[in-house]
Amino acid sequence: MLKIVEQSLLYDFYGELLTTRQKEIYEEVILNDISFSEIATEKGISRQSVHDLVRRCDKILSEYEEKLHLVERFLKTKQDVLEICELTTRFRNTSDITLIDRISDISNRILEEI
Amino acid sequence: MLKIVEQSLLYDFYGELLTTRQKEIYEEVILNDISFSEIATEKGISRQSVHDLVRRCDKILSEYEEKLHLVERFLKTKQDVLEICELTTRFRNTSDITLIDRISDISNRILEEI
Repeated sequence: MLKIVEQSLLYDFYGELLTTRQKEIYEEVILNDISFSEIATEKGISRQSVHDLVRRCDKILSEYEEKLHLVERFLKTKQDVLEICELTTRFRNTSDITLIDRISDISNRILEEI
Repeated sequence: MLKIVEQSLLYDFYGELLTTRQKEIYEEVILNDISFSEIATEKGISRQSVHDLVRRCDKILSEYEEKLHLVERFLKTKQDVLEICELTTRFRNTSDITLIDRISDISNRILEEI
């Protein structure tokens, strides 16, 4: 996974556990793609401070995921639901009833896992 | 939702953020249904201490949910997947093709939400 995608996902799940200041700067860097230098100027702090804050947030968010694995759970479910979606399209094209069994199996598996 | 079910769900999602001691006692009470008095005797602490620890854990877990809403997100997804599951059964009984459209709509909605 691209680092920026991973960072956005972790932030989406655990971002509310950061402080207001951390969220403010992390969002600028990760979600709005503003450079360290620009934020440093805007906030009146050094570029190094912005860099350190972002690395610290990365670490905090990763540690939550290492403990809770909720992004991992979510990605697995998302993959399964994507498959269900594709199977409905294939069914419309083929009327193959075994595809319905697969949808049923996948949805049952999701229900067992989450 | 029954309080015990809610506590189990919150613990399933956020339990790893509790300390080892908190987890140990909370699991005994919530998952294994051991009484406060029994745990107090087992751990050599007062019944009141067990009670306080459990209430404190309830509070910590609820606060994570208030910030992150991840149990809420997962319950919503689970409800949707349950509906997909039921629709496959109905399709087998009726061959009504609009049910496939509904499965497709629901899976697309899940993908947009999670």
